[in-house]
Amino acid sequence: MQVSNTEWSTTEQTVAKAAFEKAYEREINALIEKVRHQSSTLTTLEDLWRLHDFLSAKRHEIDGKYDYSYPMLLFLFADLIKDGWLHIDELKSLDQDKLAKIAALTRL
Amino acid sequence: MQVSNTEWSTTEQTVAKAAFEKAYEREINALIEKVRHQSSTLTTLEDLWRLHDFLSAKRHEIDGKYDYSYPMLLFLFADLIKDGWLHIDELKSLDQDKLAKIAALTRL
Repeated sequence: MQVSNTEWSTTEQTVAKAAFEKAYEREINALIEKVRHQSSTLTTLEDLWRLHDFLSAKRHEIDGKYDYSYPMLLFLFADLIKDGWLHIDELKSLDQDKLAKIAALTRL
Repeated sequence: MQVSNTEWSTTEQTVAKAAFEKAYEREINALIEKVRHQSSTLTTLEDLWRLHDFLSAKRHEIDGKYDYSYPMLLFLFADLIKDGWLHIDELKSLDQDKLAKIAALTRL
């Protein structure tokens, strides 16, 4: 499947950018909420270092994940849909070819 | 000042071990309380990564600091007193020479 050299119209770029930002906002807000909850239950040093390990992993994951690059965007959208941060309906203004590719990638 | 080849009587070892554990408990409890408080005010990703940086630094510091080794104990006790995790009165069963050395180190 050829997905990396896809052209993006101006309208699609607007939709893609908005979806990217919405997914990012959702994931970050959920992460903050999770850390706030985990922290409220801290009682031991092991809990604290477990939180530190969790933050280290999440920071690495998020820093690498939210790269707004058109060649990689279909892959990112598929991942975001699989992880529940985006719904394919939020991308419905993209052309049918892109939507079909994203849908196929979510099934891999 | 010669501090590393000091002999420790059985009584002094008991006092030192208890003081070490008390200071450790105090510092860890204060750290957990601080992280719980900081986490309750998290609102942005920058706050989250600031918390991560703080935990990284603290983990490194605490892992290196609480090494129960007799040659280094006078230095550790001086640091713990300077940082407020121990009071010199809690070491009063140590011999006068050790107490004088600890007191001198706290002024460095």
